[in-house]
Amino acid sequence: MIVTLERNADEARVRGELARRGLWTGAPLRAQDGSVHLPIGEGSVSVAVDELAKVPGIASIATSASAHPLIDGHGPTVRVGAEVVGRRAPVLVAGPCSVESEAQIHRIAGALAKSGVTWLRGGAFKPRTSPYAFQGAGSEALRWMRRAADDNGMKVVTEVLAEGDVEAVGEWADVLQVGSRNMANYALLKQIGRATKPVLLKRAMSATVEEWLLAGEYLLASGAPGVVFCERGIRGFDPSTRNLLDLGAVALLAHAYGLPVIVDPSHATGRRDLILPLARAALAAGAAGVMIETHDAPQDAKSDGPQALLPDQVKELAADLAAARAPSARPGGAS
Amino acid sequence: MIVTLERNADEARVRGELARRGLWTGAPLRAQDGSVHLPIGEGSVSVAVDELAKVPGIASIATSASAHPLIDGHGPTVRVGAEVVGRRAPVLVAGPCSVESEAQIHRIAGALAKSGVTWLRGGAFKPRTSPYAFQGAGSEALRWMRRAADDNGMKVVTEVLAEGDVEAVGEWADVLQVGSRNMANYALLKQIGRATKPVLLKRAMSATVEEWLLAGEYLLASGAPGVVFCERGIRGFDPSTRNLLDLGAVALLAHAYGLPVIVDPSHATGRRDLILPLARAALAAGAAGVMIETHDAPQDAKSDGPQALLPDQVKELAADLAAARAPSARPGGAS
Amino acid sequence: MIVTLERNADEARVRGELARRGLWTGAPLRAQDGSVHLPIGEGSVSVAVDELAKVPGIASIATSASAHPLIDGHGPTVRVGAEVVGRRAPVLVAGPCSVESEAQIHRIAGALAKSGVTWLRGGAFKPRTSPYAFQGAGSEALRWMRRAADDNGMKVVTEVLAEGDVEAVGEWADVLQVGSRNMANYALLKQIGRATKPVLLKRAMSATVEEWLLAGEYLLASGAPGVVFCERGIRGFDPSTRNLLDLGAVALLAHAYGLPVIVDPSHATGRRDLILPLARAALAAGAAGVMIETHDAPQDAKSDGPQALLPDQVKELAADLAAARAPSARPGGAS
Amino acid sequence: MIVTLERNADEARVRGELARRGLWTGAPLRAQDGSVHLPIGEGSVSVAVDELAKVPGIASIATSASAHPLIDGHGPTVRVGAEVVGRRAPVLVAGPCSVESEAQIHRIAGALAKSGVTWLRGGAFKPRTSPYAFQGAGSEALRWMRRAADDNGMKVVTEVLAEGDVEAVGEWADVLQVGSRNMANYALLKQIGRATKPVLLKRAMSATVEEWLLAGEYLLASGAPGVVFCERGIRGFDPSTRNLLDLGAVALLAHAYGLPVIVDPSHATGRRDLILPLARAALAAGAAGVMIETHDAPQDAKSDGPQALLPDQVKELAADLAAARAPSARPGGAS
Repeated sequence: MIVTLERNADEARVRGELARRGLWTGAPLRAQDGSVHLPIGEGSVSVAVDELAKVPGIASIATSASAHPLIDGHGPTVRVGAEVVGRRAPVLVAGPCSVESEAQIHRIAGALAKSGVTWLRGGAFKPRTSPYAFQGAGSEALRWMRRAADDNGMKVVTEVLAEGDVEAVGEWADVLQVGSRNMANYALLKQIGRATKPVLLKRAMSATVEEWLLAGEYLLASGAPGVVFCERGIRGFDPSTRNLLDLGAVALLAHAYGLPVIVDPSHATGRRDLILPLARAALAAGAAGVMIETHDAPQDAKSDGPQALLPDQVKELAADLAAARAPSARPGGAS
Repeated sequence: MIVTLERNADEARVRGELARRGLWTGAPLRAQDGSVHLPIGEGSVSVAVDELAKVPGIASIATSASAHPLIDGHGPTVRVGAEVVGRRAPVLVAGPCSVESEAQIHRIAGALAKSGVTWLRGGAFKPRTSPYAFQGAGSEALRWMRRAADDNGMKVVTEVLAEGDVEAVGEWADVLQVGSRNMANYALLKQIGRATKPVLLKRAMSATVEEWLLAGEYLLASGAPGVVFCERGIRGFDPSTRNLLDLGAVALLAHAYGLPVIVDPSHATGRRDLILPLARAALAAGAAGVMIETHDAPQDAKSDGPQALLPDQVKELAADLAAARAPSARPGGAS
Repeated sequence: MIVTLERNADEARVRGELARRGLWTGAPLRAQDGSVHLPIGEGSVSVAVDELAKVPGIASIATSASAHPLIDGHGPTVRVGAEVVGRRAPVLVAGPCSVESEAQIHRIAGALAKSGVTWLRGGAFKPRTSPYAFQGAGSEALRWMRRAADDNGMKVVTEVLAEGDVEAVGEWADVLQVGSRNMANYALLKQIGRATKPVLLKRAMSATVEEWLLAGEYLLASGAPGVVFCERGIRGFDPSTRNLLDLGAVALLAHAYGLPVIVDPSHATGRRDLILPLARAALAAGAAGVMIETHDAPQDAKSDGPQALLPDQVKELAADLAAARAPSARPGGAS
Repeated sequence: MIVTLERNADEARVRGELARRGLWTGAPLRAQDGSVHLPIGEGSVSVAVDELAKVPGIASIATSASAHPLIDGHGPTVRVGAEVVGRRAPVLVAGPCSVESEAQIHRIAGALAKSGVTWLRGGAFKPRTSPYAFQGAGSEALRWMRRAADDNGMKVVTEVLAEGDVEAVGEWADVLQVGSRNMANYALLKQIGRATKPVLLKRAMSATVEEWLLAGEYLLASGAPGVVFCERGIRGFDPSTRNLLDLGAVALLAHAYGLPVIVDPSHATGRRDLILPLARAALAAGAAGVMIETHDAPQDAKSDGPQALLPDQVKELAADLAAARAPSARPGGAS
């Protein structure tokens, strides 16, 4: 946004009036003909153009069109069958990093369902940094997860890694997950959008909020009925936690954009003992839910055992989150 | 930490046992004589050496000495007169970015005190990126702040910018603040430590947690009786919020190191409308308090007007934080 | 690498001997039984285990297996028909960001060939942050590029965006390019590897060198006969150049790993006037070539016009690089 | 810069004309009265306003005043006695991380002088992350360095850590160095500026180029007669080199701002075997010199031994740089 001043306007006063409304102004730009423009900087709150137009000294206000009109019109909720993400109660998504066997996923799903977890997550296809690491049990695991979820009245969310797998995953899952490594894999986003299922869109390790929203725009433009954003930590310079959880971005999506966003504190921190405080913080910042890695025998997990909570710990977390959640904590879709 | 295996140990099983306890292991290191070491990676929880020594297959465990023994022995609280930071109730620190006049700071302090704010903050000496920007009202402002605080039963915290100012600031303030730009200004840290007053230590824009703790070690080694850490957002790649609030680091300090840490959501986000959700999130993550920029006439503020809350908004925030704070939310000094 | 000391070893002296050889040591790790391990830190040069074993006071040396054995055995050159990347003369890759018409690519290829450019680059499928931006002329452009290259004795390198396009691109191109957004799209890497063509692998915006090498390992493990790495700037915190060119990583790949790596200064800086000095710097750091965006009418370019050089500017650059390149400047494949 | 279009201007064509001149345009901003502004984005080259004013369709061009007018007028050279930094021949600065004894600095200076090194560097006061690490030999070391330099016809550059040391250091050194940790220690910058000596200004770990230039502005505004900027690597996310050498920023300072900038590849990489290629790359990018850590007995160095070159290696480097330096490689002060 750029504010152009009237000739003879009191520049300092206009800047003050903008500051009063929460708007940062950059260095004034002056044209040869004497006109003065004030650029509105990042970190400014949203203010209606009509309100600004009334400020004495402002001649005109120029704005740019949004690059993601569909996302702007998306709204704070996503419906998944009878479940709605983004309503008052936070959504709890839990399950193992990798689905390892039919028995494993049934045991875990059964335990989680009793704790109030309504979404079952689990990896059938795993994106692994090394070509020699376990790559997931594959499409068989999709069926195991479906049955485990159905037996326990849960929804299934699982990641799609390859364009060729979209159809198969769409057949078994309720929500298709885009992993952080594939957030800017536009061929995959288009293919997933065409499956016309709700999508869970993880943020890439180095994506700006704008790039994340544009990835969501790809999904909606290709046919996805709704997108749940998922913050899982970005790349930082400090190895003391595995990733850098960006709850400022979560607050921005929830409160300024009015979008449904959940948080994955398991990947964000990697430290089992910090998952609960960060899950609480996520909900306080405006998250519509949390996604937790769970395993009933972390010592045997094929991936990410050290960050997996036991089902009993998820139960405590669920109770704690329910208690900690003040009535006013959710933005209720207000932007 | 490095775990050395017994000959003939079942390596996968030891790794599983470590994972079960929340420990990440890196690639095994093998010596020519056949001995195998497992390095314990970042993101691991703290586990007692004695407990690990019992795991079958582990021959020995080697650990390094901490680089910050005084900080390790610091504990979760800091006493400032009759006030204690790090106890159950969160500390509210508020005040203007710059102290601009005696009347201004008295008005603001009066309003804040009624809202439960017990620490008055305000800049007398301002670190400004440009040499031509307002550099603060100087030492006069220290006296104004002291009187405004005394009249309202508040403590004073203010930043020291120069070695030569330490004595003067120490005379008027209860807590000496080290700004983020000076976190690694070791000459200043030593000088401040010698003033034997509690210190509020802001994290540098690109400091790792370890470097931040070592800056605290400088303060304690030079005589400071206590350090309150303050996270105010680090440098990130996304301009959509002004800084990147690292609540993972806050959780780490509060829960893993058992240290008092407060959060400055005003500088972290720059967006006035995100300050409340991020203040809530900070407390949920384990912060012992929050520091909020306040101004009663943001349009006239000499710096940072767009992120300043009105005293009435601070009052709402104080009420909200009190309500949202679940009884179990603070770690109570447990590490 | 971990060095274990003999009992009674002079620890400071061993550390000194390691420092003399260019090895950084971290804080010593001490076991309960008195044994002392020195971890060798990042930034250390490569030293043969046998040489270290002779240092007085060292009892044993433990090392971890490489995570990318195929890349380690790759060597400094890649053959593409009669051309070899990584030999003495640097490879010049140039062409438009997007192939826009048959006439355009023929004109540009003709001009470039006269300047010593031997590889023609151009986008048929473009990864665009916005779903509404020009997505490339598609498969037709592949044929145009092939003919333009053949008419001028050039090789063709072009990006593959989708698994479904690998076969078509493999039919027309000599080298398949993986874009930075897809560096960790493992499904695509596997598919491209199976095409058994040389691959140009761009580094992801936030990939560590180790992750980049592992992406190369995916390609080799899937059948690619050779990988040319391409540094194009990573994500940084400073907007003054578009991306942050990491020539330290280029030197590391060229000199420590002995791998062929080229540099794309056009994307790295975005500033047309800095492309030449950064191209020179890239070769001086050890790059085996540079990739330059060229357009003969930047005002009509469908993407990235501001960073495109004119063919005449590429000619000057080619002459300048040839002159600036001292005989000793390339590592000659030495690692 | 913002370009305002004439009514009825062909927007695409104006954007094309701007692109042709190397200017990036952001999303157009439209006012209610129909006027259209095009913001000129980061990564654009410098173009004279007068030239742009001639482009058909452009009504007016608005620009902001520079925040660092003194730096803008600084020019490409700095005079230090009879030596001039920024002329054709690159400046070689070398010496030990810490000055450890009078004999040591004499031996090293003698060896370096024979290799063409004209500036002797060495730390008397060392900024160390740990309060328990060696903090330098102190003011005595200043005298040792002065005599060693005088005996060999060299200039002395050394870091000032504390405001209280400015006078003493100014007495013995020719150039006062601001370390990266103190780049935004404005109290120190002002004090150093008042010493009216040339300053070597290292970039902070997370400083943007604009912040770095503003730190230089502080120095000039306080009285410094000249500033030599020094890039030494910034904080990145990849531990494989110790810091991230930003040669894009070096090219920007040298070629776009016309400022003298030198590079410290020793700190940037930490790897002794990459210092030479990165020193070469620095000069190719436009650096006016390089600063190299040297020690004649790295095994005994009190700090940074693993990255220190032997005096003989510096000699080879000096010869190599002289050979590799093409006649056209320096911008010659052109901006």
